[in-house]
Amino acid sequence: MTRYRVAVHIVPRRGLLDPQGKAVADALRSLGFPGVEDVHVGRHIVAEVQAADAASAEQSVRAMCAKLLANPVTEDFEIAGVNAA
Amino acid sequence: MTRYRVAVHIVPRRGLLDPQGKAVADALRSLGFPGVEDVHVGRHIVAEVQAADAASAEQSVRAMCAKLLANPVTEDFEIAGVNAA
Repeated sequence: MTRYRVAVHIVPRRGLLDPQGKAVADALRSLGFPGVEDVHVGRHIVAEVQAADAASAEQSVRAMCAKLLANPVTEDFEIAGVNAA
Repeated sequence: MTRYRVAVHIVPRRGLLDPQGKAVADALRSLGFPGVEDVHVGRHIVAEVQAADAASAEQSVRAMCAKLLANPVTEDFEIAGVNAA
């Protein structure tokens, strides 16, 4: 078993309202960043897992996202990277 | 002016307590993922900004992180990517 560090991005699904992103964009514009057009706020999760190889580390993190980490109604997730830790 | 999409990772600073990450790791282990050793939960922010070039887009997003998006006491940020949108 090797230790892998798997990074995941969980982002609000495109086309759904993203009130947090809108609030951040409005705050940035009023703080002196007029060039901000849009902001999306998601989560960046790094999981350190023991697995036999990188493929099974990725597969188990996908299962974690489906089961706990992401809300399947409102969010999408993508595996951003798998590295031996 | 071109529209750039700048992705940022904001993560809890190493060495500080990360109660959210610890709670997620405990929940995953009790949900049937015994291989989970550690979890860190940060934010993944995508900002779409108007800028003259990629370097100035990145620079303005760094300023946004320092001013609003990241907590300089407890968090670190890194620019994950700059792409023309």
